[in-house]
Amino acid sequence: MSISARLLFLAAALGFLPVYSLLPAAARAEAPQVNTQAPGFYRLMLGAFEVTALYDGYFDLDANLLYNMPSEAIRSRLAERFNLRDGKFQTAVNAYLINTGTKLVLVDAGNPSGSDGSAGHLLVHLKAAGYAPEQVDAVLLTHLHGDHAGGLLNVAGKALFPNATIYMSKTEADFWLPEDAAKRAIARGLIPKAMRAEQLASVFRATKAPLAPYEAAGRVKTFEDGERILPGIRSLAAHGHTPGHAGFEVESNKAKLLIWGDIVHSAAVQFAQPAVGIAFDSDDKQAVATRKAILKRAAREKLLIAGMHLPFPGIGHVVTNGGESYEWIPVEYSPIRE
Amino acid sequence: MSISARLLFLAAALGFLPVYSLLPAAARAEAPQVNTQAPGFYRLMLGAFEVTALYDGYFDLDANLLYNMPSEAIRSRLAERFNLRDGKFQTAVNAYLINTGTKLVLVDAGNPSGSDGSAGHLLVHLKAAGYAPEQVDAVLLTHLHGDHAGGLLNVAGKALFPNATIYMSKTEADFWLPEDAAKRAIARGLIPKAMRAEQLASVFRATKAPLAPYEAAGRVKTFEDGERILPGIRSLAAHGHTPGHAGFEVESNKAKLLIWGDIVHSAAVQFAQPAVGIAFDSDDKQAVATRKAILKRAAREKLLIAGMHLPFPGIGHVVTNGGESYEWIPVEYSPIRE
Repeated sequence: MSISARLLFLAAALGFLPVYSLLPAAARAEAPQVNTQAPGFYRLMLGAFEVTALYDGYFDLDANLLYNMPSEAIRSRLAERFNLRDGKFQTAVNAYLINTGTKLVLVDAGNPSGSDGSAGHLLVHLKAAGYAPEQVDAVLLTHLHGDHAGGLLNVAGKALFPNATIYMSKTEADFWLPEDAAKRAIARGLIPKAMRAEQLASVFRATKAPLAPYEAAGRVKTFEDGERILPGIRSLAAHGHTPGHAGFEVESNKAKLLIWGDIVHSAAVQFAQPAVGIAFDSDDKQAVATRKAILKRAAREKLLIAGMHLPFPGIGHVVTNGGESYEWIPVEYSPIRE
Repeated sequence: MSISARLLFLAAALGFLPVYSLLPAAARAEAPQVNTQAPGFYRLMLGAFEVTALYDGYFDLDANLLYNMPSEAIRSRLAERFNLRDGKFQTAVNAYLINTGTKLVLVDAGNPSGSDGSAGHLLVHLKAAGYAPEQVDAVLLTHLHGDHAGGLLNVAGKALFPNATIYMSKTEADFWLPEDAAKRAIARGLIPKAMRAEQLASVFRATKAPLAPYEAAGRVKTFEDGERILPGIRSLAAHGHTPGHAGFEVESNKAKLLIWGDIVHSAAVQFAQPAVGIAFDSDDKQAVATRKAILKRAAREKLLIAGMHLPFPGIGHVVTNGGESYEWIPVEYSPIRE
């Protein structure tokens, strides 16, 4: 503080000047950088349903995790789209909260909560969006990977959504949850490339853990492919990334949204080249075939899409660029419009 | 409220139950839709400078305002990009706040403040971003149209930024501000197509009005094309949309940003077809030539761009699709990263 500022401060402290008389001058000379980001939620109406995208965070993934395209071509493409940094690409982790007017439904729960890392921030953004975890009636899981189901627990390892029932596809539950699941997965060859054999047992254990308090409370349910899970919400088989990976078709007053889970992990690469997959896929061929089929349908039907690993908020449309090459058109930020 | 809920409420009101005992149950049964949008700011670091995009709002513009392309083709293109609604397209109005560490610099001020319409909300988002208008040291104007300079006044018609100096290009000031400006504009043929002759005098009066309190306080300055206005901020001639329309090149620690003003009004149409202009342009040919030149440079130099009418936050990169056709790649939402 300069001498003149000290004198002014003294004058204010002694009551000769109002304290606020100091503030504009100080602020004017050097406003400190605020350095906070806008909260990670984005909202739109889907018919009578309110849909809120929630940002759990991001991962910097190694470009080499993408397969079915030469490594150099993948790096070039990522760099051209301004998404290559030290050999890695930034991938968002999103979840979606649907308020149907009678039920509050969360689709996927993000990463384990309370981390100070780049992900695990869903709870912060859920609250910023005006909701409390106790209000959630149902959590629908696209699949059981840790960045989708890990967030079911709070930092104390208890149920973060104590009043919610958890829903997952029966195929997904049958793959991950039985006692002998790891052995059966090896026998079927359904081990993602990114997973080393010695990690298998612990991965299967870790996958089951977030469900434990909900199972203990009798709050875990499974659904069949294409089943109507709740009014206005139906499952869609989207197998490949995991054996029971599912999307959700949401519909209200004829407005439709397909929440497609992990159909795309790199928007920069996979819309243009749907044959490219990621090493976390359980079944390469099925994952690619499912992506191609869903992209084709999304473009043809002009479906509104929400994707867990698309650039936040991850909501938008798919258009064809001819053949099997597509482009992603994100929704444009605006106030909530009807 | 159901009978059992009324009984519970009565029990709580009479002190038999704590009031909060009602809340989770009520919320769980039917969480009300929140219906608010995430605040309209987005922040990133540019070297040591903090850059905050501020959302003033949006306009629904008539597709017929776009020229140099058949009306049907424009509508088709807008519809293909999911941006045609009742013959109109949604266009954002953005401004950018730069905290250099020693100066707080606002680039453009949006629409007249305090409206309850679709635009004029810059002040709300400035505050949400953690700043007060009294902290702003300088306002740089890309040009004097009302959606860029109108926000200089508060709802009482006084200076919203009482401690700021206002900067604009000398060419722009010379076009709009002299007593005989309207007459001279007619003589030079520089009347935007959207402006009817009888509106001219009032448009020129309206354009001068937001500057009045700043002029009275001796706080209006002009700059030349290419002039260094403040440390790290230089003007760039981008004439055509208005006679003195300017961009600003911002640089800190070798990181660069070009804030290009009104080079593009419809991202859906004009990146792919830079020959298309908008009826607010003063000089069609010059506006098109400037857009083509700046798009070419932006793609070649991989410049980070900020645009006042690009989808909020309006920050991203331009890539070429071959020839004079380009594509817009918006930055991806993330926490502030170095």
